Amino acid sequence: MDLQSIKEPTFLKGFSNKDLEDLAKDIREFLIENLSVTGGHLGPNLGVVELTLVLHQLFESPKDKFLWDVGHQAYVHKILTGRADQFDQLRQYKGLCGFPKRSESKHDVWETGHSSTSLSAAMGMALARDIKGGSNSVIPVIGDGALTGGMALEALNHIGHEQTDVIVVLNDNEMSIAPNVGALHSMLGRMRTAGKYQKAKDELEMLIKKIPAFGGRLAATAERVKDSLKYLLVSGMFFEEMGFTYLGPVDGHDLEDLKKNMNYAKKTKGPVLVHVITKKGKGYAPAENDAKGTWHGLGPYKIESGEVVKKPGPPSYSGVFAETLKRIARQDERIVAITAAMPGGTGLDKFAKEFPDRMFDVGIAEQHATTMSAGLATQGMKPVFAVYSTFLQRGYDQLVHDVCRQNLNVFFAIDRAGLVGADGETHQGVFDISYLRHLPNMKILNPKDENELQHMIYTATCHDDGPIAVRYPRGGGYGIKMDEDLKQIPLGEWDVLKQGSDFTILTFGTMIPVAMEAAEELGKRGIHVEVVNARSIKPLDQDKLVDLAENQRPILTLEETALLGGFGSAVLEFFHENHYHSVVIERMGIPDRYIEHGSVPELLEEIGLTSQNVAAQVEQIIPRKRKRA
Amino acid sequence: MDLQSIKEPTFLKGFSNKDLEDLAKDIREFLIENLSVTGGHLGPNLGVVELTLVLHQLFESPKDKFLWDVGHQAYVHKILTGRADQFDQLRQYKGLCGFPKRSESKHDVWETGHSSTSLSAAMGMALARDIKGGSNSVIPVIGDGALTGGMALEALNHIGHEQTDVIVVLNDNEMSIAPNVGALHSMLGRMRTAGKYQKAKDELEMLIKKIPAFGGRLAATAERVKDSLKYLLVSGMFFEEMGFTYLGPVDGHDLEDLKKNMNYAKKTKGPVLVHVITKKGKGYAPAENDAKGTWHGLGPYKIESGEVVKKPGPPSYSGVFAETLKRIARQDERIVAITAAMPGGTGLDKFAKEFPDRMFDVGIAEQHATTMSAGLATQGMKPVFAVYSTFLQRGYDQLVHDVCRQNLNVFFAIDRAGLVGADGETHQGVFDISYLRHLPNMKILNPKDENELQHMIYTATCHDDGPIAVRYPRGGGYGIKMDEDLKQIPLGEWDVLKQGSDFTILTFGTMIPVAMEAAEELGKRGIHVEVVNARSIKPLDQDKLVDLAENQRPILTLEETALLGGFGSAVLEFFHENHYHSVVIERMGIPDRYIEHGSVPELLEEIGLTSQNVAAQVEQIIPRKRKRA
Repeated sequence: MDLQSIKEPTFLKGFSNKDLEDLAKDIREFLIENLSVTGGHLGPNLGVVELTLVLHQLFESPKDKFLWDVGHQAYVHKILTGRADQFDQLRQYKGLCGFPKRSESKHDVWETGHSSTSLSAAMGMALARDIKGGSNSVIPVIGDGALTGGMALEALNHIGHEQTDVIVVLNDNEMSIAPNVGALHSMLGRMRTAGKYQKAKDELEMLIKKIPAFGGRLAATAERVKDSLKYLLVSGMFFEEMGFTYLGPVDGHDLEDLKKNMNYAKKTKGPVLVHVITKKGKGYAPAENDAKGTWHGLGPYKIESGEVVKKPGPPSYSGVFAETLKRIARQDERIVAITAAMPGGTGLDKFAKEFPDRMFDVGIAEQHATTMSAGLATQGMKPVFAVYSTFLQRGYDQLVHDVCRQNLNVFFAIDRAGLVGADGETHQGVFDISYLRHLPNMKILNPKDENELQHMIYTATCHDDGPIAVRYPRGGGYGIKMDEDLKQIPLGEWDVLKQGSDFTILTFGTMIPVAMEAAEELGKRGIHVEVVNARSIKPLDQDKLVDLAENQRPILTLEETALLGGFGSAVLEFFHENHYHSVVIERMGIPDRYIEHGSVPELLEEIGLTSQNVAAQVEQIIPRKRKRA
Repeated sequence: MDLQSIKEPTFLKGFSNKDLEDLAKDIREFLIENLSVTGGHLGPNLGVVELTLVLHQLFESPKDKFLWDVGHQAYVHKILTGRADQFDQLRQYKGLCGFPKRSESKHDVWETGHSSTSLSAAMGMALARDIKGGSNSVIPVIGDGALTGGMALEALNHIGHEQTDVIVVLNDNEMSIAPNVGALHSMLGRMRTAGKYQKAKDELEMLIKKIPAFGGRLAATAERVKDSLKYLLVSGMFFEEMGFTYLGPVDGHDLEDLKKNMNYAKKTKGPVLVHVITKKGKGYAPAENDAKGTWHGLGPYKIESGEVVKKPGPPSYSGVFAETLKRIARQDERIVAITAAMPGGTGLDKFAKEFPDRMFDVGIAEQHATTMSAGLATQGMKPVFAVYSTFLQRGYDQLVHDVCRQNLNVFFAIDRAGLVGADGETHQGVFDISYLRHLPNMKILNPKDENELQHMIYTATCHDDGPIAVRYPRGGGYGIKMDEDLKQIPLGEWDVLKQGSDFTILTFGTMIPVAMEAAEELGKRGIHVEVVNARSIKPLDQDKLVDLAENQRPILTLEETALLGGFGSAVLEFFHENHYHSVVIERMGIPDRYIEHGSVPELLEEIGLTSQNVAAQVEQIIPRKRKRA
């Protein structure tokens, strides 16, 4: 059918299974075709086509609430709720968001991006329904990977206890982004191979009635034994223990099986967990066959060959991080690496190849990863937790309470710091300076390029006076020449990249080229700007700052991070703490709002972090300084 | 024996059970007597006397690592490791810390205060041991309440998966601080009543061998069935599913039972969970009988009568919060209250009495509580999450990603904001402004007294444009007259408490009396100081700030929170954003380090937040201003 003609999911009500199958086929073709141009999360969405169809047929969105955990698997839902015509702009500036978005549709009742939030939100929605006397269903759809996140387990525990009507759909695709980690995953594995739960239970109950021993010698415990039957052949009892009715395993690509179980779940009182087995990439061979995650989320590709279109370019910051860490780990046995389900994204998969016993993937569990790193550090190891800026937010209390308070030598390699682009507002790494800078004992570095990154990695592994963070952006470096020998970058020492007598720009990382370009332009206009690589964000370069203040030099701080509590604020704080009250200083950075998806250059343009704006800002300040002086 | 003569726990090696019993009695007497004077966590420590004795007898600290989760139950450990002589200074300034402290003893290998961290830290220590080829035991001791914290579950999952040698002692005292919440707790309840695991398992294995059906019709699944036997009579299988060997339930006050199981655990390969049942307050009737938590942690009491010494005083901020919320909830059906295992501390137990269906205690699960509140808000409810400043740190990512990003109407009632005193550095509520202020959409208020608090509570419940936080300190108000009618406090509007033409102090909350006293003193010296109640921390009072800047008024900001990224920094940011580069402004607050335990006045003295210092600071600034002007 013409997917672009869909306005509301109500059209599904009259669909036969045959109709649904045809539609599933159309949707798959649509996704494979569109995403080959725009890129996006192909694998996860191909896996949930039938599941999403059945949910929208059996339930009534938005009265019934679907909550897509993580949210990158909501494309089919977007198509069925009237957004097929926007897929040519998927994940592009001002285009369709890659995650559920309340402003896009009334059917997107909960926004996601980070994992493991859907059960808690669902519980809130279900409690609200019960207080108000409503009768709608609340249906979080959560992957097996996301289920290992602590907050999902907290929510399971609470929902099970309260016996609230929530239908949890466990979308078990045998892998989250990386192969799953943890005991929970093994358990799900046992369930998958255990055959159908209900059938086994029935069979055993029949049998047990015939066994005299259970009516005789064990009479006192017979009731318990009978009750325990459900645990005999399958392990759904983990969820049953948690207070859930367990249904499954269900074949996630069998419409009849899905419908039967979802209908049963709909009628069941109390919390239900429907265990649905799906196949990531279902229906598109290249995506089905790739177990390593390329097809989880990717850029454009060629449909026929499944060849991913790769733009040649310099090595990524993540790659340089991993290579450097390997190099150091060969000399330093204390180095161990930790990731929370991001071995590929952080580059640690490469580290694990050489040092399989010194890399730990703990699954989606940033709290545990942070404190486990602290535990390793107490024993003289040098733990390196490589984590995206936005995901380390999950470990904030562990940073405050375990790592920084005990002043332990944990090295946080903060990847995807700054704007990340297409993943949008849930993934922008713009808060880390604000949430790390106020923590006692914390040190923060940010390299200007991939060469400085390797030195900072080395510096951080040498640092033995508490926690240290090195933050670096998503994507590729500049392809510059890499020094052969690693050296330490002194903490609290900045680097003057360009001399200039009129004005100083203090900046770091991705904003350095912007500042340099602005300085060049200003030079043509007779304004001589000094550009400083303020690579040590905590501690600051105090000598340099005192020098600037003593010389009454006007200053611009420029950062691709949140202005509130950011680097510029640190500079302000320093000047005032040292009684320099009349330094003329302006700050440029990310304003006090969330930044949506789009390419990084588009976003920088939107928020005004461009060389033209920097130049204009400097020109504005110079006369002001002259006026006030 | 003379407990003060103990230097090292090695003396226990030769002790018979009779010796241990005598010692246990001495320790209990010592604790009851000492804590009757100093106050402290009596109940939890009386519960773990035998457990701690057995651990120190069978293992070798500090080679073997004991990690005390939360840590308020480590007093017996402190006595056995040579610190009995410091108990007269327990939780006092420069005295013995109420939690494990690495600087106090080599036997304190891991510091706690917040809950649920011990398993992650233990995993780190165990991995370090394995990498280095060591052979020591790692033994986290965790309560049943702490086990519901997400990070503990993340750690269980990971430890079970890796099959690392860790001996988890589950100290199941049937209640954490408040009666436990959650499905996990129900499960532990079933285990407690299920009798001994091992015995049941043996009996059933014998039996099953005799049942022909299991060898016949079900031959193909016989192995599974046999493996499943362990699940038949007890529910230790939750942990077994997680990959742990489950031992218990063990009587935590039976030395023989404890020793047998701990010895077995010591020899077992892979992760072990020893389920120990203890009684909080064991051996002291008043503490045993109080199920409501007074005896969990308390001030001085009379030993004979068990009467708690109460200082009469004005109602606490928590009490005013709860009473006001009840009053509003009577009119507004949308109000629901949420706590994470702190119904008593936050005052929400009182709310629950009147509105049992509108208060949710989710257990120690701040992540879940934050996002569940967000879920409630999406459905038009007015969720109020009452939480200590230091514990909300656990919900930071949920604040960023779920609440603030979706701009949902969640009201955070932030209790214990500012210094908390005896609980010390893990509990000081000094970071919340720094971690909340940079979040888009967030509003932050702080009342000057309990009367303003009630108005702010009302204001926050009326607020319908996104998240709002009202922060207030631990302890009692001033006993001032309470207005009868509730009114809204306009956001972004400060209140001039005292006029003055020479200088302005911008402050809020607990620092207001300090500022007023300083202003009075300065008045005597001819310096006329304006004191402003800067009660709206985000947004700031922009009109007032512009006015101050235009008049070139020198300013001091004064706050009982972290200086980095705090309120004073917000003021600096505002001035610079608006191009007021020459305002003379100084900031006083908490420096960039962790603040240990002690009474709040002692701590304020230590960090210089006294009226004398404020006066001195003002006097220093005034001439500077004159000089530069």
